[in-house]
Amino acid sequence: MTDFVRMVEVGPRDGLQNEKAPIATADKIALIDRLSQTGLRTIEATSFVSPKWVPQLADAAEVFTGIQRAAGVAYPVLVPNETGYDRALAVGVQEVAVFTAASEAFNRKNTNAGIDESIDRFRPVLARAAADGVKVRGYVSTVLGCPYQGDVAVADVVRVARQLHDLGCYEISLGDTIGVGTPLKARAMLQAVASEVPVSSLAVHFHDTYGQALANILSCLEEGVRVVDSAVSGAGGCPYAKGASGNVASEDVVYMLHGMGIATGVDLEKLSETGRWLAALLGRETGSKAGKAMAAT
Amino acid sequence: MTDFVRMVEVGPRDGLQNEKAPIATADKIALIDRLSQTGLRTIEATSFVSPKWVPQLADAAEVFTGIQRAAGVAYPVLVPNETGYDRALAVGVQEVAVFTAASEAFNRKNTNAGIDESIDRFRPVLARAAADGVKVRGYVSTVLGCPYQGDVAVADVVRVARQLHDLGCYEISLGDTIGVGTPLKARAMLQAVASEVPVSSLAVHFHDTYGQALANILSCLEEGVRVVDSAVSGAGGCPYAKGASGNVASEDVVYMLHGMGIATGVDLEKLSETGRWLAALLGRETGSKAGKAMAAT
Repeated sequence: MTDFVRMVEVGPRDGLQNEKAPIATADKIALIDRLSQTGLRTIEATSFVSPKWVPQLADAAEVFTGIQRAAGVAYPVLVPNETGYDRALAVGVQEVAVFTAASEAFNRKNTNAGIDESIDRFRPVLARAAADGVKVRGYVSTVLGCPYQGDVAVADVVRVARQLHDLGCYEISLGDTIGVGTPLKARAMLQAVASEVPVSSLAVHFHDTYGQALANILSCLEEGVRVVDSAVSGAGGCPYAKGASGNVASEDVVYMLHGMGIATGVDLEKLSETGRWLAALLGRETGSKAGKAMAAT
Repeated sequence: MTDFVRMVEVGPRDGLQNEKAPIATADKIALIDRLSQTGLRTIEATSFVSPKWVPQLADAAEVFTGIQRAAGVAYPVLVPNETGYDRALAVGVQEVAVFTAASEAFNRKNTNAGIDESIDRFRPVLARAAADGVKVRGYVSTVLGCPYQGDVAVADVVRVARQLHDLGCYEISLGDTIGVGTPLKARAMLQAVASEVPVSSLAVHFHDTYGQALANILSCLEEGVRVVDSAVSGAGGCPYAKGASGNVASEDVVYMLHGMGIATGVDLEKLSETGRWLAALLGRETGSKAGKAMAAT
């Protein structure tokens, strides 16, 4: 496996959106600017969902216009619909992400719409994005379990992933939103999706709620996945298991990949420093074990 | 992989020996007695090393005689030499473990003896154990890196593991003492050892210092290992990286194995409760992500 994995840093969006205490716009900008200096190629900057849903990210436009965009780095943002797309486009966004669940129950609770309805809302976004030359990433959440319906059929994951790909998403990120997956289930899910969507268009997005994220990523790397979502310092937490761990920590993923001879372009020292800086800002220990060990040795 | 993994619980020994604050003998006994009710088949109870080296385990005899030994559960103890063996035998121990490093530098720092000298000390222990009907497990530490010499040659790991096996150790536990390993290195090391010692006589012992333990275990399971060392609540810490994580948490390993359809005989709920009980006793959060998530949901 001597090759390259593109890390998609989701800390500023998926990490921070789960923080209860308000975070200053300047701090969000500082986080992204620090991440831009680490060698990451993709940094998800914020979300243009309604501030009613995610008050923490109500300053999306200010954040996006405040950051220093580095050459060669993509800064995608989440958009739930055309309104979000309009807001994003107005501030110069060049890549957006749309999202739906593989679990009907989760999608209804989370977005007040069925999966098909969500996908219908994306059609005009994808059509406009194509015309505007804006890249679109697609997220499928709850791919290995749902806090409301429990098990999620692999066939549902495949169907939704394929629909997003057919609609024009250049990459589909498969998310274990509640972190319940284990390696063989992750592998089986991935194989099923890869039978309908080229594996080169797939990314994995694991939460470390049960400590399984790195093992699951390893399984998916073995199946050929070369794009991994993660959050510096393991930011995020889990809204469905209060106090539990959040996104897999970027530092731990990069440590593993480099140890396996897989390049990421990321400077692990700088990334770990940024993780500890963020943890200090949030008033806690870093959620990255590698980040903690690197500070100690 | 629908089969069985034997979990070797090392929390009472490898976990507690790294605790700075003294722990009451009664609490150590309570920990082992709780673990005995979880379905674990092997619980490393304590260590009969010199109290000068490990003051925390100076009460080894009291602990061993105080526990309620459950039917079908083995309670091995560490012995560094014949003196330790005598002390262990005097209180009715039926299984012991001997230990050496694969790194010459580590072994000298840690035991004030070269590897060959350590192995010579074990010869009479193994001879007497054979005569006494006492089983002997062998530990090889620093198999993927050493805090003093850095890299450790795989050939050194193979040589030491083979020597311990040839001497009569029924099982060799391969330990990544400082938790620096990553999956491909773990796999390569294991394959090399398995070419000289049957994989059915090998166990793996990972520390989670850099968050890699579960991914490394997965790699080794794929190579056929079916014995995994771990510590409830991820007890232990790392004396070479202050503040870093300790042993891989038993709860997280069991969660992964059960999710992969591999039986362990362990009741994960009871194990997680015991992990949280231990963490509360030590005045901290549980070091098991699964344990934390299970408490929260």
